[in-house]
Amino acid sequence: MNVRLTTGSTIEVNEGESLLAALKRYEIYLVASCGGKGSCGKCKVRIIEGDAGCRSFGKLTESEIDQGYVLACTSFPEGDLHLDIPDSSRLVVGEKIATQKAEHLHDLLESFDVEISPMLKTISLKLPPPSLDDNISDMERLRRALADTGLENIRFSHGFSRSLAEALRDPEWEITKGYFEDLGFREAVFIKSHGHQKRFGAAVDIGTTTVVVYLVDLTDGKVVDVGSTYNSQMRHGDDVITRIVYATEGGGLTELRETVVSDINDLLSVLCKRHKINRKDVESLTVAGNTTMAHLFWGLNPEPIREEPYIPTINSFPLWKARTAGINANTEAPIYTLPCVASYVGGDIVAGVLASKMHHKEEIALFMDIGTNGEIALGGSDWLVAAACSAGPCFEGAGIRHGMRATDGAIEAVSIDPETLEPEVKVIGGERPHGICGSGMIDAISEMFLAGVLDQKGKFVPEKSGSRLRKIDSDLEYIFHEDEEGYVGLTEVDVENIIRAKAAIFAGVSLILTNMGLTVEDIQHVYIAGGFGTYLDVKKAIILGMLPDLPEEKFSFLGNTSVAGAYLTLLSSDLRKEAEEVASRMTYMELSVSGGFMDEYMSAMFLPHTDMSKFPTVAKLLK
Amino acid sequence: MNVRLTTGSTIEVNEGESLLAALKRYEIYLVASCGGKGSCGKCKVRIIEGDAGCRSFGKLTESEIDQGYVLACTSFPEGDLHLDIPDSSRLVVGEKIATQKAEHLHDLLESFDVEISPMLKTISLKLPPPSLDDNISDMERLRRALADTGLENIRFSHGFSRSLAEALRDPEWEITKGYFEDLGFREAVFIKSHGHQKRFGAAVDIGTTTVVVYLVDLTDGKVVDVGSTYNSQMRHGDDVITRIVYATEGGGLTELRETVVSDINDLLSVLCKRHKINRKDVESLTVAGNTTMAHLFWGLNPEPIREEPYIPTINSFPLWKARTAGINANTEAPIYTLPCVASYVGGDIVAGVLASKMHHKEEIALFMDIGTNGEIALGGSDWLVAAACSAGPCFEGAGIRHGMRATDGAIEAVSIDPETLEPEVKVIGGERPHGICGSGMIDAISEMFLAGVLDQKGKFVPEKSGSRLRKIDSDLEYIFHEDEEGYVGLTEVDVENIIRAKAAIFAGVSLILTNMGLTVEDIQHVYIAGGFGTYLDVKKAIILGMLPDLPEEKFSFLGNTSVAGAYLTLLSSDLRKEAEEVASRMTYMELSVSGGFMDEYMSAMFLPHTDMSKFPTVAKLLK
Repeated sequence: MNVRLTTGSTIEVNEGESLLAALKRYEIYLVASCGGKGSCGKCKVRIIEGDAGCRSFGKLTESEIDQGYVLACTSFPEGDLHLDIPDSSRLVVGEKIATQKAEHLHDLLESFDVEISPMLKTISLKLPPPSLDDNISDMERLRRALADTGLENIRFSHGFSRSLAEALRDPEWEITKGYFEDLGFREAVFIKSHGHQKRFGAAVDIGTTTVVVYLVDLTDGKVVDVGSTYNSQMRHGDDVITRIVYATEGGGLTELRETVVSDINDLLSVLCKRHKINRKDVESLTVAGNTTMAHLFWGLNPEPIREEPYIPTINSFPLWKARTAGINANTEAPIYTLPCVASYVGGDIVAGVLASKMHHKEEIALFMDIGTNGEIALGGSDWLVAAACSAGPCFEGAGIRHGMRATDGAIEAVSIDPETLEPEVKVIGGERPHGICGSGMIDAISEMFLAGVLDQKGKFVPEKSGSRLRKIDSDLEYIFHEDEEGYVGLTEVDVENIIRAKAAIFAGVSLILTNMGLTVEDIQHVYIAGGFGTYLDVKKAIILGMLPDLPEEKFSFLGNTSVAGAYLTLLSSDLRKEAEEVASRMTYMELSVSGGFMDEYMSAMFLPHTDMSKFPTVAKLLK
Repeated sequence: MNVRLTTGSTIEVNEGESLLAALKRYEIYLVASCGGKGSCGKCKVRIIEGDAGCRSFGKLTESEIDQGYVLACTSFPEGDLHLDIPDSSRLVVGEKIATQKAEHLHDLLESFDVEISPMLKTISLKLPPPSLDDNISDMERLRRALADTGLENIRFSHGFSRSLAEALRDPEWEITKGYFEDLGFREAVFIKSHGHQKRFGAAVDIGTTTVVVYLVDLTDGKVVDVGSTYNSQMRHGDDVITRIVYATEGGGLTELRETVVSDINDLLSVLCKRHKINRKDVESLTVAGNTTMAHLFWGLNPEPIREEPYIPTINSFPLWKARTAGINANTEAPIYTLPCVASYVGGDIVAGVLASKMHHKEEIALFMDIGTNGEIALGGSDWLVAAACSAGPCFEGAGIRHGMRATDGAIEAVSIDPETLEPEVKVIGGERPHGICGSGMIDAISEMFLAGVLDQKGKFVPEKSGSRLRKIDSDLEYIFHEDEEGYVGLTEVDVENIIRAKAAIFAGVSLILTNMGLTVEDIQHVYIAGGFGTYLDVKKAIILGMLPDLPEEKFSFLGNTSVAGAYLTLLSSDLRKEAEEVASRMTYMELSVSGGFMDEYMSAMFLPHTDMSKFPTVAKLLK
């Protein structure tokens, strides 16, 4: 069956193949936060002409269904189609975000004052071509030349050796050789001709909800481009526990592994293609993720992570290779995995602390990573503790009817006029909104709460909500934007999800402070990481009861620090060492067994909190 | 389709599957020196009832065809069959050979006076089980315990790490850990529970014509059993050059690699099954083969071996693993490849010199490996040189109508009564003969020559041959044995092949001596290796003109020294070092470019030689 797209191109869909799968084959990637099981409703496409069998309409509204919208993941063409793919459904691999964050990251790297030193070192050699009188083998010839430069005991992998004969002859024995060092031994990785100067790397953040890849030029540390997508493992559950259950009880370890590897490969593929980069020139990678994500990525059984005493198989990962992971880069490319601390404080947090530099300073700082898992680190150059509290994926846009990541088209800020009750929204990229991201949700709820649209328990107050509150598909929903193409709102269920998430985070902060014998006042700085892009209104997050009630100037927003840490360690051996030090210095606090977590959580299930003495500025505001 | 065997069992054959392939699935392995292309005629089976489509009858005689014999490799059942598999067609995996050679090898090992020290070292550890207070990861727990015993900087492969969680928990934290050292770094390989004491290894000889596997108990060095088969690469040519051409021009590198790996796996499978050994307990392997065989085994492009200046990719191979090779042992088992010297002097010769111990002695010795390639080493403790001369596979039974390896049923000795011209044969195992092996061929030709049945050029002299010379299938053939089940003989073409082989060997010996400024008289000892089993009549080999005319007491027969070297290095780290030293000390002499080889070869194409002054004892005998 042929599917003609409004962009002009035509794709062929196989019998029994979903539109989502077919589009993917043509490297047209759609957003699918549920991983393609027909429930998130984010891969919607519009059938202009033709028929398709649709197994589910997920979160599509009746009016959308009337307009011809279907979910690409559960639609199977029954003949030729004419199809429109809305921009909002397309996977964002964004130049705009790239440019902005790229400079920020490059500045961050420079602020550490370290040399650029990728995992792979290179050395230029000129070998005498073999002759009947000098007929030692290629490997001995290479070893001899290396020994002349003082490099001995180099290990040659099977993969490297297989390409050796050709690699030496093609550039006529003038070569640049790459190798890496690990535990004091060196391993040869690649041979290039002298002229070949292209060296790229990828910094990868495997979040529970999203996967982000930064393609980096290793010669100057510049970010070439950025891509991100939902983690397709989402189809098997929103949080790490469900994934662990699926991996072990369902025997789905291999499937989960392959799923996330395929996400990374898809992103790498788009980025390399766009910049005409040969995958072989992607010669090293760093991966940051929580402990479960790191275990799933490497195919390690995550079961013991979930069972007391919660033991990961590995915290400090060896350098393994792209070949082993199944990553479509240079097969010999080493992959550095950011070290984990414990079962629920992973490499993403180590990356974050590294990027925050809090471990360099004497002051007591709080680091909060507001992703699906909600991890917290506390301390400074003297000591570091960390804990986890499961926040859920809503701030990353998943599980929220109009939720989306902080990319073009997302409502990132909301204000509601207390008189007219009319909302005003700010949209990333300035276009018409087609969803709402984490910072927008925080704004929206605190504004609705202040305006009286929501009560302290997070329930809508219809008599105070004006015309914006509607009943859509049997849910109460507050509408922030509406035009002929659609609308964006938040349902009561969405609000409840967001309150659960913020409560988990705040309970974690309260408990870690209590356990250290500290109070909120002892915190000298708060670093906030997560999928908020660059914007978060602190005051509104305090009104929500997510952040501790501290003066605004004590807060810094760091964006996605997990990928920032991956970027830093991709480029510097000093920073790789520093990451290992941070991980080994950090003490893990298991909140679930230390008692008191549930009490703190239940108290935080209100707006902003049952104990208003913890939020004096909000109390003042409400009066 | 069902095939009922005369042994009582029944196998199922799939549509389009040859009998050979179907039998192999049931682990019934047949001899197939051509690798299953229907030309060697060695996999013959007899159809008692039923029909099969037979694409070729190879070397079957008309009377055999009348009796219902077909070639299993090119026969495809057209319905149910009743089938008889003659013992002579079965792959010999022999207890008899094993017992005999096993003791010989074990004595050889003891004569070196070295400790048994397999590649894998083991260490016993008792780890404290994890708890909430001691919740470091499994890998860190293992590292900590290893560090306590002084073992640091151990590398953990991905394969090892994947099994770590389970491997530590099953034996309740009391474990035996295996690791190997290479280039000063250590790599973890396996974990077993304390009680588990089984440790096996395999010594593998990859010959151009035959593959031999010795299954060895690593705890005491005893040979458990031995298996051998023809190298299935034979289907793509008898000698290394044809194989290289097939690998490179035909793109058949992967196929050749998989073919020989499958031969080794078949043998390992039979041996492990017979002794109820779990493949996982086969925890290290050594492989000896000529340079081309080693390159093909590891999937290295052999093309440069064939082109001036004849450069192998690797002479001294890194330790790679069973997983990489595709060998069905413990996937993490390290494989040691005996080092090669040059493109045409490989690990089989290094193994042979090691097993001969000639490198320990001051006297000048000649080492001859009479396999398909015919390699020669000369020297002693002061110096060692080596050269190659392609002999062809006939002494291993291939390319000879009734040729077979030196196993049960092979004629290993022949004498012809000069009066009656009646031959008398000696058969390995004492049964009726069903073929002739290398030593039998040498005996046969020298006896036929002395009796006048053959002239100096190797042509039959019908008037002096008596009733034993027949014309069978248009070839002149001399019959050594005949009964109602069949006959064994040598054709004129067989004789020509054998003379070519011996001429290549003798030319090599002459030239290497000349190049070193020595003569036959300077040789103080001759070591003979090859597929002759334990028997070779020196006097007759001198009459043939294959061995230099020296007194009988100067000769020693060592059997298959390639597998002997593999066995020695499997069991001792000192001997692995010694093998590396032998390889690096040995100087390679390229006979094909040093001139004079063709002259020497042509002179040796007579019985015994055109220059009778080189064979004074034979000249005397003929008078």
